[in-house]
Amino acid sequence: APVAHIGVYAARRARLAAQLGPGGIALIPTAPERKRNRDNEHPYRFDSYFYYLTGFTEPNAWLLLDEHGHSTLFCQPKDLQREIWDGYRLGPEAAPAALGVSAAHSIDELDARLPALLENRSSLCYPFATHPGLEGRIDGWLHKVRARARYGALCPDTQRDLCALLDEMRLFKDAHELELMRRAAQISAGAHVRAMQQCARWLRGGRALREYHLEAELLHEFRRHGAQGPAYGSIVAAGANACVLHYRADAAPVRPGELVLIDAGCELDGYASDITRTFPANGRFSGPQRDAYQLVLAAQEAAVAATRPGQRFTDPHQASVRVLAQGMLDLGLLDGTKVGTLDDVIEQRHYFRFYMHRTGHWLGLDVHDVGRYVEPGEIGQVSERTDPLSGETIKDRPSRILRPGMVLTLEPGLYVRPADDVPPAFWNIGIRIEDDAVVTEHGCELITRAVPVAPEAIEALMRD
Amino acid sequence: APVAHIGVYAARRARLAAQLGPGGIALIPTAPERKRNRDNEHPYRFDSYFYYLTGFTEPNAWLLLDEHGHSTLFCQPKDLQREIWDGYRLGPEAAPAALGVSAAHSIDELDARLPALLENRSSLCYPFATHPGLEGRIDGWLHKVRARARYGALCPDTQRDLCALLDEMRLFKDAHELELMRRAAQISAGAHVRAMQQCARWLRGGRALREYHLEAELLHEFRRHGAQGPAYGSIVAAGANACVLHYRADAAPVRPGELVLIDAGCELDGYASDITRTFPANGRFSGPQRDAYQLVLAAQEAAVAATRPGQRFTDPHQASVRVLAQGMLDLGLLDGTKVGTLDDVIEQRHYFRFYMHRTGHWLGLDVHDVGRYVEPGEIGQVSERTDPLSGETIKDRPSRILRPGMVLTLEPGLYVRPADDVPPAFWNIGIRIEDDAVVTEHGCELITRAVPVAPEAIEALMRD
Amino acid sequence: APVAHIGVYAARRARLAAQLGPGGIALIPTAPERKRNRDNEHPYRFDSYFYYLTGFTEPNAWLLLDEHGHSTLFCQPKDLQREIWDGYRLGPEAAPAALGVSAAHSIDELDARLPALLENRSSLCYPFATHPGLEGRIDGWLHKVRARARYGALCPDTQRDLCALLDEMRLFKDAHELELMRRAAQISAGAHVRAMQQCARWLRGGRALREYHLEAELLHEFRRHGAQGPAYGSIVAAGANACVLHYRADAAPVRPGELVLIDAGCELDGYASDITRTFPANGRFSGPQRDAYQLVLAAQEAAVAATRPGQRFTDPHQASVRVLAQGMLDLGLLDGTKVGTLDDVIEQRHYFRFYMHRTGHWLGLDVHDVGRYVEPGEIGQVSERTDPLSGETIKDRPSRILRPGMVLTLEPGLYVRPADDVPPAFWNIGIRIEDDAVVTEHGCELITRAVPVAPEAIEALMRD
Amino acid sequence: APVAHIGVYAARRARLAAQLGPGGIALIPTAPERKRNRDNEHPYRFDSYFYYLTGFTEPNAWLLLDEHGHSTLFCQPKDLQREIWDGYRLGPEAAPAALGVSAAHSIDELDARLPALLENRSSLCYPFATHPGLEGRIDGWLHKVRARARYGALCPDTQRDLCALLDEMRLFKDAHELELMRRAAQISAGAHVRAMQQCARWLRGGRALREYHLEAELLHEFRRHGAQGPAYGSIVAAGANACVLHYRADAAPVRPGELVLIDAGCELDGYASDITRTFPANGRFSGPQRDAYQLVLAAQEAAVAATRPGQRFTDPHQASVRVLAQGMLDLGLLDGTKVGTLDDVIEQRHYFRFYMHRTGHWLGLDVHDVGRYVEPGEIGQVSERTDPLSGETIKDRPSRILRPGMVLTLEPGLYVRPADDVPPAFWNIGIRIEDDAVVTEHGCELITRAVPVAPEAIEALMRD
Ligand SMILES: [Mn+2]
Ligand SMILES: [Mn+2]
Ligand SMILES: [Mn+2]
Ligand SMILES: [Mn+2]
Repeated sequence: APVAHIGVYAARRARLAAQLGPGGIALIPTAPERKRNRDNEHPYRFDSYFYYLTGFTEPNAWLLLDEHGHSTLFCQPKDLQREIWDGYRLGPEAAPAALGVSAAHSIDELDARLPALLENRSSLCYPFATHPGLEGRIDGWLHKVRARARYGALCPDTQRDLCALLDEMRLFKDAHELELMRRAAQISAGAHVRAMQQCARWLRGGRALREYHLEAELLHEFRRHGAQGPAYGSIVAAGANACVLHYRADAAPVRPGELVLIDAGCELDGYASDITRTFPANGRFSGPQRDAYQLVLAAQEAAVAATRPGQRFTDPHQASVRVLAQGMLDLGLLDGTKVGTLDDVIEQRHYFRFYMHRTGHWLGLDVHDVGRYVEPGEIGQVSERTDPLSGETIKDRPSRILRPGMVLTLEPGLYVRPADDVPPAFWNIGIRIEDDAVVTEHGCELITRAVPVAPEAIEALMRD
Repeated sequence: APVAHIGVYAARRARLAAQLGPGGIALIPTAPERKRNRDNEHPYRFDSYFYYLTGFTEPNAWLLLDEHGHSTLFCQPKDLQREIWDGYRLGPEAAPAALGVSAAHSIDELDARLPALLENRSSLCYPFATHPGLEGRIDGWLHKVRARARYGALCPDTQRDLCALLDEMRLFKDAHELELMRRAAQISAGAHVRAMQQCARWLRGGRALREYHLEAELLHEFRRHGAQGPAYGSIVAAGANACVLHYRADAAPVRPGELVLIDAGCELDGYASDITRTFPANGRFSGPQRDAYQLVLAAQEAAVAATRPGQRFTDPHQASVRVLAQGMLDLGLLDGTKVGTLDDVIEQRHYFRFYMHRTGHWLGLDVHDVGRYVEPGEIGQVSERTDPLSGETIKDRPSRILRPGMVLTLEPGLYVRPADDVPPAFWNIGIRIEDDAVVTEHGCELITRAVPVAPEAIEALMRD
Repeated sequence: APVAHIGVYAARRARLAAQLGPGGIALIPTAPERKRNRDNEHPYRFDSYFYYLTGFTEPNAWLLLDEHGHSTLFCQPKDLQREIWDGYRLGPEAAPAALGVSAAHSIDELDARLPALLENRSSLCYPFATHPGLEGRIDGWLHKVRARARYGALCPDTQRDLCALLDEMRLFKDAHELELMRRAAQISAGAHVRAMQQCARWLRGGRALREYHLEAELLHEFRRHGAQGPAYGSIVAAGANACVLHYRADAAPVRPGELVLIDAGCELDGYASDITRTFPANGRFSGPQRDAYQLVLAAQEAAVAATRPGQRFTDPHQASVRVLAQGMLDLGLLDGTKVGTLDDVIEQRHYFRFYMHRTGHWLGLDVHDVGRYVEPGEIGQVSERTDPLSGETIKDRPSRILRPGMVLTLEPGLYVRPADDVPPAFWNIGIRIEDDAVVTEHGCELITRAVPVAPEAIEALMRD
Repeated sequence: APVAHIGVYAARRARLAAQLGPGGIALIPTAPERKRNRDNEHPYRFDSYFYYLTGFTEPNAWLLLDEHGHSTLFCQPKDLQREIWDGYRLGPEAAPAALGVSAAHSIDELDARLPALLENRSSLCYPFATHPGLEGRIDGWLHKVRARARYGALCPDTQRDLCALLDEMRLFKDAHELELMRRAAQISAGAHVRAMQQCARWLRGGRALREYHLEAELLHEFRRHGAQGPAYGSIVAAGANACVLHYRADAAPVRPGELVLIDAGCELDGYASDITRTFPANGRFSGPQRDAYQLVLAAQEAAVAATRPGQRFTDPHQASVRVLAQGMLDLGLLDGTKVGTLDDVIEQRHYFRFYMHRTGHWLGLDVHDVGRYVEPGEIGQVSERTDPLSGETIKDRPSRILRPGMVLTLEPGLYVRPADDVPPAFWNIGIRIEDDAVVTEHGCELITRAVPVAPEAIEALMRD
């Protein structure tokens, strides 16, 4: 398929080139194909860094980029026999026009050409610790450069982690990315709506329903809108299964009276969406379910309010935690006579028993997207503390300051496992509400709200 | 999930143990988890050999089996924190009862325990060339055995390929396997029917249709019947795309008047199904489409007729080739004045231009399942020939004799790329018809015929 | 240099071939060159197995041998430029005549030719765990064989340890080997005589003498008789240094009144000799020195007496231990009131404090030569015992039965470190007497006795 | 053995630390032990970089050094049992006092401690492409640092080649190094004198003499003066063997009337010396031998004259080449009517046929010592040229400017292989004269001239 918007990728390459420094050259392979069973492979997913710089989705491709912006692509050569079997290839002849790169060669020439391309550079930039075997191949090429020292060849004596540069770029989404992420969010929201409605409808019809029936709805809805598939393993968790954070949709029965937690989002042209909704299987919250749900919703609202430029990445989390902790005391999940005040609950992390994850993560090409969670300019301001639960010594550095163009999820939750000191009404309730937020000039925009979060709205939807 | 039918797996282990010989021990790891992007993984698929012997689907597990049938499992230990995050684990305490193995330990003890378990064995049997890094780990363990030579430890001095033993076992499906494969075939057939009908309906409705719309139907139908997903990348190829053999469903428009080729099958509890159908997008074959289709269907019928005990694996292929070659002459795809007689077309492989793949493959846990294509008892009867197209020297050994319990696909095809010497009416037509056959006492049973092949039946179906 | 006695090597290859079994093929690389510092290498030493089968001493060579005795050598190609720099190469053209191999190719063709040479074999035999990286290269070649399965190629499904076969062959020395080992022994004995005499002479002359002065004598004597150098790091240990078993000659002063222990032997055309003598630096044993020396000598005599066909490999050791243990009691090194009787001393290994090594080892191409120490036919007769010192459980298997043609060392010793409960007169005395024994029809032949062991003979020698 | 001069090593570490930059840390392992045959190892040689910074000669040691000069040593722990077998170990307790390092730990703790020591550093400096497997181990440690990112750990994102820093330091020898190199040179010169005299004496005595007899003299002389052994494989080449540049002393007969070329030097406490002399076996040059010898000597004199501060590294070579080229024309080795003028001979490299190596190399801890041959400040001034012989394109960069403290060899030669167009009188003559030069304030000092070069002086010496 031809690559649209090649100017977008060229601009990114130019921004990267400007950071490579004198004598610098960057090297980025795409991802390998992954075996599934025997000669059968998983659906191919390109490397996010490589795609960010090229828009190119074929496997077996590498990009080189030098400080002057000269880009060289290695890609699969045209080969009629192979293309009859495995499909169309762009090929190096067409690549410069199609992708805007300066030059292109067959991937078969990679080993032969790389030493000369790395020769006489002073520093080499590539993604550290990302592609198993990459360091070994680079060593092999540099070995050949060194072997030519007698002919005047210089070998790079510095290696830099490309991720450090690209992560910062990718953290701030450009217009092209935001457009794709909004579309992905829209498709995913629609799938959640459909699963909710289908769930209520089936149960009303008295039919036996299992988790995989709901997952089938999601898959269908993602794909029929042109998304390539789920951005991550869809979670469809009925009843107690919702208390397993990364539960995968399986075959458990979905029973009236229980909650269903769905955490699923499609990937569209490489970009992830990430939505969680929790709803009553039969379309109507019971009292304790509603109480717990309202609490998580309030925690999310507090997080949303804390998501705006100038705030830190950890602020939405702290806002959610404060709401959740108070709610745990109010609902009797925590006993104030034992755990102390709200501040004690927060400081001693008593809430962790029912809320054990962070409130969000960056979102983009990767569902847990790249980007430093520490503010770069303040990285040296370290304060040490001891975690009250694990006893582990932790070095705290100032959390990242939110800026327009960042995209993050806001996903507080509450997970109650049965225990003697917990009111039975809440046993096995697992709730999470997750939306995707784009940081804007003055606050944030939730791009996934085409599926409602208010309990009344969910109930209304499920009545249809 | 608990493993049903543990007696089935125990019986397989016993049969393998009996083949290990004096002092023999076998070692089988399951498959690794596969990265997709960043910390996001592909859906987990266990190793087929490991599953065949255990029925166990968790990652990070190994099986040891000695000549006396004593089996030792290494698996993920129980760990509440990890299970809150990643889900239920069976754990080594429960494994012996749940799986019928003799003993079980935590996978964390693998490196510590393996040297002692391999000590004083004379031969070690493991799957060669299947698990990258396995040979290295084995070398490490044997190194520790050798280091204990001073304490009287003996180290295996022979290593045997476990695949050679297990491939023969897996080639003959037992009742449990046939039952699963029939159910998988049934689900897949239903999905094909639904895609055909949806295609016609949508086009009748005047709606724009793309390949991914049809793929969405397949995914939905597989999953809602409890299949875990597609057994391989679904092919939904509209028009000329059908001439790319391993084309993957993409975004091409599906246009009335064109054929659509769908090659897709679900995987159910590890077992693959594999069906191909080709149909007119609008539900009605044109004349040349029908002629070509009838030819491929006749070729498949010839293959079916040749599939029975005592025949060779290559017999269905030769039967199909003979029908197809004659048809190519009859339809004018090949010019008899240039290529000669039917026998010349076959001998010189002129048909290869329009039919370039084999007519089938073993089917089972892997879609291209294991099993020797050469008859074991006749392996030394080699005859050399020169391939008329490539000039390559090929050693022919007698093809496998078909026996009851083998399962194979029968999938002739015809693929016509545009060319000056080819009638334009056939340009860009790609047709394949594939069914899954179980070899029975006196012939074969096609388990995928719940989706029709006769052109009239397809047209009837698509009218509904 | 041309290889003499090519018939000897051909006969060995034929004996090995006869053991490879149907479809068997053996693969043996020679040793790599070893880096010392920067581009500077250690003196090259070929692999002992490879040399045993070829007599060929160049690096970068491999031997293949099939069950029919067909042998293929890969070796360095003729190359005038390289030969101007690095010296003469035999080259593949001359190799068949010079070495008696069936065929020879350039080492540059190894990767290209190996897959075809391994194709259609049923088992592959190579030295396990001996050449780092070999397993990986073999995997690579077999990968190429497997990739040709479609052309009828069979891949070996069994791998056997070549060492198991060759170790047995090498354990029994043929006439050619015994001739070389006798010459090596003769040279080494001469070097010991010279070092003893030089030591006494220098000290008589009042000159300061250091260990390295004596090592220089050994090196000179080895090399001027055409030996390539020491077979192992020469031990020249003055005074207390003799209590460090693998001490290397260094710069310690050699003082009158102290003993000097020299353990050194040359390597001649690949074959090791191994002699230890202990002598008084000034040529005259003191009383305690003489007592201790006589004890070790008696222990060696007991070992010699126990070295004859039909005895076990461990018999000389047990004979030495019994003499030494009694002597330790007699000399007051062990206090019978504390350690009990002679049998207690042996059973509880009290002697280990002063005699902590075995009494000998096989000798041949390697100084610690290959060959099983367990009797092959009795390998299954295991008895377990607990080591009284370490508490380690040890599996005992019947020790090897001595047969004519085996060559082993006989080297009891006594090492006394200072301690409160040990008579000060023996402090820092370290004594070892080692000779090389060829097992003969009715006993053994000591081939290293051109240097005397009797204390009087040593004193006489050192007076000259 | 205790390390003397620990201040010397501390000063070097301080100079290196000052170059590591903010957040920098350096990591330097010593060399591994090298296998020779079976369990027998080559004499241990430490890594030159590691030794340069520590003076420590045990294997299994690593140095870490941070930007503030804090140094951490990992070394073999004290272990009485191991020390009884393998000798004294310094141990981490004694290391700080003995070596002047800030801290020391057991090598057994390396893997456990390294991640914490690399944490929160911004750049990591280690020797690139020098220690096989080092990159992999570093990746492993950094992987553990990255895994602690959640606890605030930062991982170095830059890797620098330590060699680039240390090579510059080592290029300029300090007083301690020059003192050692002078002593090594003195010992080697004495060995050459002795070999010459012994050669003449032996032949006068009518005895059969082989190359290894002369090598024995060298070994003896090196070792008895306390040198550890040869710094590189000694070349003792009789007659035509001298035309093989890296010939190793073997068993060729040394015949009266032939020349003998000896290229050998000892290594003393890690420092190499490197001397070549060529002399008539019987002590008297023939006419053509003398003519050729005088030519090489004149070439060396020209090289010596060109060795002074401000000259380039290539100047001595060019001076030698000019003299040699003129001599080749004068002696009739080159035919001026065919090859043209002196300038043509130089420009077209006709001289290469008889003089095919460079005139020298840096000398120090490594015989071909480290140090850039290109002037660092002028590295970007590249000029391309085509080699007239190979056709290879060569990038020339300005050659290194000589400065006081550099040590290099000056070793022109002449090698005449038989050919129709060469006067038979010169056939098989190979001559090289090599001395070690320290660049001084105003010129250079030859530290190896205790063995003469003048033909008359050699003849006089050999008469004694
Ligand atoms: Mn999320
Ligand atoms: Mn198929
Ligand atoms: Mn020994
Ligand atoms: Mn030199």
